[in-house]
Amino acid sequence: MYLAGGTIARSGDVMPAKVAINGYGTIGKRVADAVRRQDDMHLVGVAKMKPNYEARMAVERGYALYATAGDALPKFEKAGLKVHGTLEDLLKEADLVVDCTPEESGYKPTYEKAGVKAIWQGGEDHALTNFSFNAAVNYGDALGVPWVRVPSCNTTGLIRTLYPLDVHFGVEKALAVMVRRATDPPDSKKGPINAIEPELEMPSHHGPDVQSVLPTLNLHTIALKVPTTIMHVHAIAVELKQEVSAGDVIGVWRRTPRVTFVRGADGVTSTAQIMEIARDLSRSRADLYEIAVWQDGVHVVGKTLYYFQAVHQEADVVPENVDAIRAMLKLEKDGRRSIEKTDKSLGIGG
Amino acid sequence: MYLAGGTIARSGDVMPAKVAINGYGTIGKRVADAVRRQDDMHLVGVAKMKPNYEARMAVERGYALYATAGDALPKFEKAGLKVHGTLEDLLKEADLVVDCTPEESGYKPTYEKAGVKAIWQGGEDHALTNFSFNAAVNYGDALGVPWVRVPSCNTTGLIRTLYPLDVHFGVEKALAVMVRRATDPPDSKKGPINAIEPELEMPSHHGPDVQSVLPTLNLHTIALKVPTTIMHVHAIAVELKQEVSAGDVIGVWRRTPRVTFVRGADGVTSTAQIMEIARDLSRSRADLYEIAVWQDGVHVVGKTLYYFQAVHQEADVVPENVDAIRAMLKLEKDGRRSIEKTDKSLGIGG
Amino acid sequence: MYLAGGTIARSGDVMPAKVAINGYGTIGKRVADAVRRQDDMHLVGVAKMKPNYEARMAVERGYALYATAGDALPKFEKAGLKVHGTLEDLLKEADLVVDCTPEESGYKPTYEKAGVKAIWQGGEDHALTNFSFNAAVNYGDALGVPWVRVPSCNTTGLIRTLYPLDVHFGVEKALAVMVRRATDPPDSKKGPINAIEPELEMPSHHGPDVQSVLPTLNLHTIALKVPTTIMHVHAIAVELKQEVSAGDVIGVWRRTPRVTFVRGADGVTSTAQIMEIARDLSRSRADLYEIAVWQDGVHVVGKTLYYFQAVHQEADVVPENVDAIRAMLKLEKDGRRSIEKTDKSLGIGG
Amino acid sequence: MYLAGGTIARSGDVMPAKVAINGYGTIGKRVADAVRRQDDMHLVGVAKMKPNYEARMAVERGYALYATAGDALPKFEKAGLKVHGTLEDLLKEADLVVDCTPEESGYKPTYEKAGVKAIWQGGEDHALTNFSFNAAVNYGDALGVPWVRVPSCNTTGLIRTLYPLDVHFGVEKALAVMVRRATDPPDSKKGPINAIEPELEMPSHHGPDVQSVLPTLNLHTIALKVPTTIMHVHAIAVELKQEVSAGDVIGVWRRTPRVTFVRGADGVTSTAQIMEIARDLSRSRADLYEIAVWQDGVHVVGKTLYYFQAVHQEADVVPENVDAIRAMLKLEKDGRRSIEKTDKSLGIGG
Repeated sequence: MYLAGGTIARSGDVMPAKVAINGYGTIGKRVADAVRRQDDMHLVGVAKMKPNYEARMAVERGYALYATAGDALPKFEKAGLKVHGTLEDLLKEADLVVDCTPEESGYKPTYEKAGVKAIWQGGEDHALTNFSFNAAVNYGDALGVPWVRVPSCNTTGLIRTLYPLDVHFGVEKALAVMVRRATDPPDSKKGPINAIEPELEMPSHHGPDVQSVLPTLNLHTIALKVPTTIMHVHAIAVELKQEVSAGDVIGVWRRTPRVTFVRGADGVTSTAQIMEIARDLSRSRADLYEIAVWQDGVHVVGKTLYYFQAVHQEADVVPENVDAIRAMLKLEKDGRRSIEKTDKSLGIGG
Repeated sequence: MYLAGGTIARSGDVMPAKVAINGYGTIGKRVADAVRRQDDMHLVGVAKMKPNYEARMAVERGYALYATAGDALPKFEKAGLKVHGTLEDLLKEADLVVDCTPEESGYKPTYEKAGVKAIWQGGEDHALTNFSFNAAVNYGDALGVPWVRVPSCNTTGLIRTLYPLDVHFGVEKALAVMVRRATDPPDSKKGPINAIEPELEMPSHHGPDVQSVLPTLNLHTIALKVPTTIMHVHAIAVELKQEVSAGDVIGVWRRTPRVTFVRGADGVTSTAQIMEIARDLSRSRADLYEIAVWQDGVHVVGKTLYYFQAVHQEADVVPENVDAIRAMLKLEKDGRRSIEKTDKSLGIGG
Repeated sequence: MYLAGGTIARSGDVMPAKVAINGYGTIGKRVADAVRRQDDMHLVGVAKMKPNYEARMAVERGYALYATAGDALPKFEKAGLKVHGTLEDLLKEADLVVDCTPEESGYKPTYEKAGVKAIWQGGEDHALTNFSFNAAVNYGDALGVPWVRVPSCNTTGLIRTLYPLDVHFGVEKALAVMVRRATDPPDSKKGPINAIEPELEMPSHHGPDVQSVLPTLNLHTIALKVPTTIMHVHAIAVELKQEVSAGDVIGVWRRTPRVTFVRGADGVTSTAQIMEIARDLSRSRADLYEIAVWQDGVHVVGKTLYYFQAVHQEADVVPENVDAIRAMLKLEKDGRRSIEKTDKSLGIGG
Repeated sequence: MYLAGGTIARSGDVMPAKVAINGYGTIGKRVADAVRRQDDMHLVGVAKMKPNYEARMAVERGYALYATAGDALPKFEKAGLKVHGTLEDLLKEADLVVDCTPEESGYKPTYEKAGVKAIWQGGEDHALTNFSFNAAVNYGDALGVPWVRVPSCNTTGLIRTLYPLDVHFGVEKALAVMVRRATDPPDSKKGPINAIEPELEMPSHHGPDVQSVLPTLNLHTIALKVPTTIMHVHAIAVELKQEVSAGDVIGVWRRTPRVTFVRGADGVTSTAQIMEIARDLSRSRADLYEIAVWQDGVHVVGKTLYYFQAVHQEADVVPENVDAIRAMLKLEKDGRRSIEKTDKSLGIGG
């Protein structure tokens, strides 16, 4: 790190923070794109293990490519892919690294040695950083901290809609049944092709994971895996502390960032149509950063609220990563303003 | 109907009841097979709309084939399939008809006119018969009644495990999230191929349907459709009226007919392996009549019980149909004995 | 049509041609987007049957929305969607209409009456227009013609790679086995979920369809439907008139517009990774307009060439539609220049 | 081996041959069942690596269970599964072992040491045994040989229909495009969920594999993997040495053992309905041992024959294994009689 993060170059003019990405897969490439869209951040490069087609596309996008480990350099060379060095070289250029490697890859000592701050994804345990981040919940607490974890797509999705319910109406207890996509669209190895797989351990890890951000929320989670690649769907039952109408709930979510609505009455009867909307929005990679709630699937019986939401597992954590960078490097002190800035850059809302 | 049902021919020797099947598809062919395995019933024939491959297989199995409507007779003839007449002819041979036609086919007047009793399947409304049947719950009430409806596979599955819980521990309230197979194995037209589809109307029809058999059970149901053909999976949360252990619950279900256990620890991690077990059992059509509960997926937190069960949608209602026939024609007065007889004939339990 | 097409407004400055889209589904919306990217065309509006989510997205994209039929106007109004009139009103604004309605919708008389030229898609028979278009093959012949049909995605895909083979090496005969996606990503109704469905009629319609553009090509086609939504894959065997090397063939295709290469060696082992590349390219809707040939799947044995190609069924015909508009309205006389112009606007090649 | 194979006990009465199965998975359990149905064979036991649900079902079927390796014995004990010893113990009881272990498991030295004959499955190379078996082609040559390999399901499927074509009409050359199921029904780990994967190496291994049985057949094979579990489908083009009609071809196959017909006209439009027929046949595990040819998909153009066939990958090699046992142990000298005996026992034909 040849410059301390956030150095003021001249009056009123902040040098963009220097951000590296370690691991350029599903999440890594999206965070890279999102960082590039920020005016207060600069993407110094991306590190990759293998010189596959995704590495090629990184180069085509104009990203500085680094090999994660030195011994992979010949493979990159053989594949005709120019690399700028190794992960260690990349970290020298960075104030902060976003770790998007497979879970338990164990780079923390490397980052410590390089003197860079780091963000991990939801595959890691909360204990790795002791700080699990959600922009709407705890942005302020993340200001300046060195290590942050952004919980998984499902956990982030649950927090997005449950947190405002708790704030506005009080949540007595909640049960979320998560019908999970089995693997991501670019993977052709994993199944199942024709089966439903319940997660027998209970509660699924998602409940405690939500509580790493919202410690007092009384939530039980149940998960099942199904043969689809495009989105998770959550069926959620919430006992609220007061009687509300479906309209009240919808009203609260309408004012909540990164929550959006779809309607069966419009022909959006499944995740297939939601992903089509994302394509119709002409977003990069057809991503849906928002949690999509079926508006005509919101039902209230007494104090119990039932709803369905869909989570685009490749995308919803991306804006959270951007906000986490901003908080950790103190690029913006106000969480709400960071959220707005990030959302505007990614075409969310408005 | 040339003989009244259950006529005593000579001392101690009951003439087998004469049963017809109208609609020889997924359920119809299974009920036909099951009826044939009973020593107190005789399958007089099956009626079918179209002379397709299933009609051919009915003939190969030795079933007397009838065309549902007279105007289809030339099509059967053209297909080289010998028919014994029309549905009306078939009904003349029968004491009781099991209607396995598509929902709302509207044959009730035909059956009334023919003077035969009738059983319908779960696609019909409760109001059609005002009697929804489950052998364990209300066999006795069905003795001699003319019209009975066997609720759908999902409803039957919920009743199988919830009823004994209510009897033994008391159910305060229950929530069932049903992750449903989208279509049956022999269908190649329906999808989705890659999507999850929530049922936005709430509660799904299954909750009220369970209450058509168990009127006082406080149950809310939520349904989603996923791209698989082989089984439904239910994730169920039950607030019991007393604290129990997982072992207590498993003990009750172990004594419950038509409930069986599978274990993730044995490698049964999904519906794929459950259906393989059914094949390994060498059952006809690889059917699983029992509801399969994941034993190591039964969890109790305080008074709340969580469990997963899998329902073979093609098969679980089949033994219920057999018992319903027996009750309606008074072939056996005791429900428990009818269940035992049916189960033994189908290779269930033991 | 209030102005004749291609009117010269002032010296050297051509008024953009006015293009309407009838049918705003999978193809319609893509052609709309593509037209908007051309500097010699102007999208005057899109007509839609139903006020569903796709209609909403059309409005959000800033397209002038029209109801196909007058009697649908109240439905659009009820859905809160402002329409500019009916299809007839739209046609008054247009020089040419691209018909992307379901096959055999029968709008030809309407277009004739309105005095607009029209393009249909591959669902229609060749006989409807007597002109089946492919920019590389017969652009010149389409100059000024009133009615044109752009053949289907599969047919276009076959022409893209077979035509240059025939031009450079001569094709003695060819056999293409098309493993077809069963339905498009936004559809959640059609299956199969778990089956393979051969097209028993033979040759499949694709062979004669290719011959509607390349009448002398000796081609037999075989088709099967499989449970995937994202791309078709063709396995093709070609007997060439001369011995060539795989490198010769690859060299020809490298110089062929709208053909691109992928490599198993780069980790592109299936259609899943090809579609991921399209997303990595940040194309609108993650579209791949090019036919993707597996470079390391090109094999030559004697005079016989074997290769695999993947077709993004939603996208490959889109640039052909743009070129067809240009030819029919004489916006550009040279096919090669039109192709270059279209491709540059859509980010193809380069 | 405590008794030499095929010992004559008393005049005219042959002791059943003692057969062991090593590897009790998809193929192993089916061969076990098939062996048990033969009157000239005795199943002495099955060896299994892991004490999973399939091991439990083996015990429930009454098979003597052995642990493949001694160090697995405690695991079986812990799972409550009684084993009769290890693979070595099992081999002592056997004249012949059918190896259904994963490919390249390397048990040949073990079998040699135990002095038992052995059959391997298609995952192994031809070179392991130098004898690849198909009952219709080379039964006679297998009489008494010690090592035999039964080629894979796809290879066996190709031989079944191509061999009689070559015998009756002469095959100039053939091209088979195999659209392969990605994994078997009881597996829930492998994908793809939504992709098509071509086998880029060419020819696929199936062509040379067919030639290990039919050395002079001029065959090129191409393979693709698709998201289905139930059957493979082959699209085959054959240049015959003489002009024939579709009826001639169908006539030959009608007289060919283990080939059967299905018809699109009967509603059998995909593999889904073929597997339903297998269930309707009430075969064990709903197996289809025969290759199913679509009768209305057989087309002849000049000397070129096109047809589609479906292969139940779990079942078609099972009768071949039985015949191989019979040949190797000289239980029957005439191949045709062995085929008839096997087929009758499995319910094939007739």
